[in-house]
Amino acid sequence: MAHDINKLWEQDKAHFIHPFTDFSVFEKEGCDIITESRGEYVFDGKGNKYLDGIAGLWCVNIGHGRREMGQAMAEQAERMAYYSPFNNLSNVPAIELSAKLAELAPSNLNHVFYSCGGSVANDTTVRIVHYYFNQLGQKDKKIIISRKNGYHGTTYVSSSLTGIESNNWGFDTADQFVHHVAEANCYRRPDGMTEAQYCDYLVEDFESSIRQLGGADKVAAFIAEPIMGAGGVLVAPEGYHRRMYDVCKKHGMLYIADEVVTAFGRLGHFFASEAVFGIQPDVINCAKGLTSGYIPLGATLLSDEIYAVISKPQREGAVFSTGFTYSGHPVACAAALKNIEIMERENICGNVRDVGPYLEQQLKTLLDLPIVGDVRGSHFMMCIESVADKATKALLPMEANVGKRIAEQCQKRGLIVRPIAHLNVLSPPLIWSRETVDLVVGILRQSILATVESLIEDGHYQA
Amino acid sequence: MAHDINKLWEQDKAHFIHPFTDFSVFEKEGCDIITESRGEYVFDGKGNKYLDGIAGLWCVNIGHGRREMGQAMAEQAERMAYYSPFNNLSNVPAIELSAKLAELAPSNLNHVFYSCGGSVANDTTVRIVHYYFNQLGQKDKKIIISRKNGYHGTTYVSSSLTGIESNNWGFDTADQFVHHVAEANCYRRPDGMTEAQYCDYLVEDFESSIRQLGGADKVAAFIAEPIMGAGGVLVAPEGYHRRMYDVCKKHGMLYIADEVVTAFGRLGHFFASEAVFGIQPDVINCAKGLTSGYIPLGATLLSDEIYAVISKPQREGAVFSTGFTYSGHPVACAAALKNIEIMERENICGNVRDVGPYLEQQLKTLLDLPIVGDVRGSHFMMCIESVADKATKALLPMEANVGKRIAEQCQKRGLIVRPIAHLNVLSPPLIWSRETVDLVVGILRQSILATVESLIEDGHYQA
Repeated sequence: MAHDINKLWEQDKAHFIHPFTDFSVFEKEGCDIITESRGEYVFDGKGNKYLDGIAGLWCVNIGHGRREMGQAMAEQAERMAYYSPFNNLSNVPAIELSAKLAELAPSNLNHVFYSCGGSVANDTTVRIVHYYFNQLGQKDKKIIISRKNGYHGTTYVSSSLTGIESNNWGFDTADQFVHHVAEANCYRRPDGMTEAQYCDYLVEDFESSIRQLGGADKVAAFIAEPIMGAGGVLVAPEGYHRRMYDVCKKHGMLYIADEVVTAFGRLGHFFASEAVFGIQPDVINCAKGLTSGYIPLGATLLSDEIYAVISKPQREGAVFSTGFTYSGHPVACAAALKNIEIMERENICGNVRDVGPYLEQQLKTLLDLPIVGDVRGSHFMMCIESVADKATKALLPMEANVGKRIAEQCQKRGLIVRPIAHLNVLSPPLIWSRETVDLVVGILRQSILATVESLIEDGHYQA
Repeated sequence: MAHDINKLWEQDKAHFIHPFTDFSVFEKEGCDIITESRGEYVFDGKGNKYLDGIAGLWCVNIGHGRREMGQAMAEQAERMAYYSPFNNLSNVPAIELSAKLAELAPSNLNHVFYSCGGSVANDTTVRIVHYYFNQLGQKDKKIIISRKNGYHGTTYVSSSLTGIESNNWGFDTADQFVHHVAEANCYRRPDGMTEAQYCDYLVEDFESSIRQLGGADKVAAFIAEPIMGAGGVLVAPEGYHRRMYDVCKKHGMLYIADEVVTAFGRLGHFFASEAVFGIQPDVINCAKGLTSGYIPLGATLLSDEIYAVISKPQREGAVFSTGFTYSGHPVACAAALKNIEIMERENICGNVRDVGPYLEQQLKTLLDLPIVGDVRGSHFMMCIESVADKATKALLPMEANVGKRIAEQCQKRGLIVRPIAHLNVLSPPLIWSRETVDLVVGILRQSILATVESLIEDGHYQA
């Protein structure tokens, strides 16, 4: 299909407000328009082909261009594209997906509330948590503890949960009921602490925050990503989540796992909370990999205990008055069912458990390069942190824009990686083979070396 | 396709948390499962066929089962289902839809921010309005005035905009920056006022609220549905919106039109604000009819003036840090483009302008029935209000559940209408003909008569 790329490029700038745009350069530089995609690859309208190192945006887990995904959507759209899920109405794909998710999730999570993405899944979770404690008569128990550098989305309230400072520059937040504790950043932990000591420190800090906020009477829940995503692919110390979970239970708090990135295979399992971290959260939120991004869908999985409380009318004549026109959208749920079918049929979680450790190991070979301070992550969720000085971990100057430089060098060589300040994130489709890993690590090595040269040229770095 | 309806019915109750569920009966009665749909009709899994009087939920504007909608989605899903719209990336359908929406919308609205539905469109609007005034240095100008009985969704913040009291029973709201003024309810306006006097009264009440809230320094925006939807299909007095708009402009406030229900043909035009009510809002939100509900999509249309302010970086190195993974989803945007193509090709707005007045006129013939107090609305957005006494407009007792009784009687006769307390809403697909209208009005007459009998039998009403 031929596109008039120049016309599209102008229309894009004139009419489409992109998320997370850098408006200082947008008017001049505009966007790269991705026009086609197939398997591990995407194509722009100018004849360039790229290995997709970010799976769209942590989401195209089964890879691009799966004909049967489109067919499943078309069949459902023709059979029954939409009917209200409100009141006493339901539809087949939403029911079947709910039963399937209850089967895949930890055993206590059997009830599914649908939205169209992670931001709203988290937003709704806050609404439901507050409702839950109102129902229990604990009307002052409303504080949600989140973590600095956690990413939980950008509705008004989910942006308040998000703890990345720059995310809320210029925006207001609804932070009267949100408190942020320190994130778990092993690479930049205080000097002289072992990882085990750092874990003790974080858990103690968490418990002391709970006490300062008023304890069990005031603090309702803790929300955390199993591995922090946009905040820098931060892997917590061994045992951290289990201990944070125990603290929550000790204080009558709910534990909310934001598995928007980690669920559906990225760490080798449909859900990571129990399989990888050994905990049964009270709430798991997922989106992205749930449909591999082929259609918007988010799901909030609630425990039997929460459901028992919220599924009683709050007063006579009252309904559970929350939810969306598109909660449990038939076409989206049909796509999710097909996505899960493909993942099971091709054992995609198995591929991640097999190739993931190889990806980790090969990426770590880049640690011999001058500016590579840290390579971290797990399985198909990885990150490279660039520094000016490996010993002190000092950063390069912000204006050097090292993440963007590396991403641009990679793109020249046919690989898309995501820059976040001084970081580069890799969150590939879950179908990568060892051969693809070798190709990618080769491109990264060349690109980082070329970046070092350009940094030296521009006076940002000294060899 | 054969379904095991009993098994589905049990799975539904066990796993799918429906929006706006009445949990006092859900465990026993469960849901009706809609399995197929075609044109004006939907089918349940038990062999029953219904005329769809609510277009799914105010949304299936082009009617059910359009093969070309599914095909457009399948083609885009195979070509390029998803790529990030963040940073410097874009995709063809999102660009083309943005340009098309800018063409269809009032002339000052040229910039589109995407979400997946109306709730989030409204939520994001509040976030952007606050950001806009921060950028202008007016950091105290944050209050949003909404209306009692207005419906603006159920994210945490959009539920706070929603002014239907029962909607927030048991839930918390973020109401520190939301104020509700009186809705425009011509049927229940104060005794002795003409409609023109009532309009004066509402406009004066609005302006006095603005002053009490601190005037132009504090009040940021007004949000209103052109015709109030879930709050009871309330049509404001002639000239109301223009005058409310003028008050906004006088006080340096933004006017936000929530056209989630009214846009895409329901009142006979792609957008109602200018074509029907003669105003150019600063923001128009739409969803539902945008894709005719075939796939989730919402859009926030922003004026050139707002865009000029928000499209400057808030500080060096900052990005416009809001938006969603699925903002401008390629498959959703491709479906919206196909939906608009169908609407234009079949002149669906023309059908609404033609058949709409006939629907209004024929529904008004029901006013001779004993409990029909009011028939109101416009074109394909109509409502019947039941009362115990037409003279006093006194309501039937809540436990009589008259709206539900009428809906059940209609359903027995093969028509789905939506009950909201003592109201029944009709928001059909925009393809209804005069013949369908005649059929529907006939069913309604029989159903209301049967309801009157049952109300008498149960001692809720005296003839």
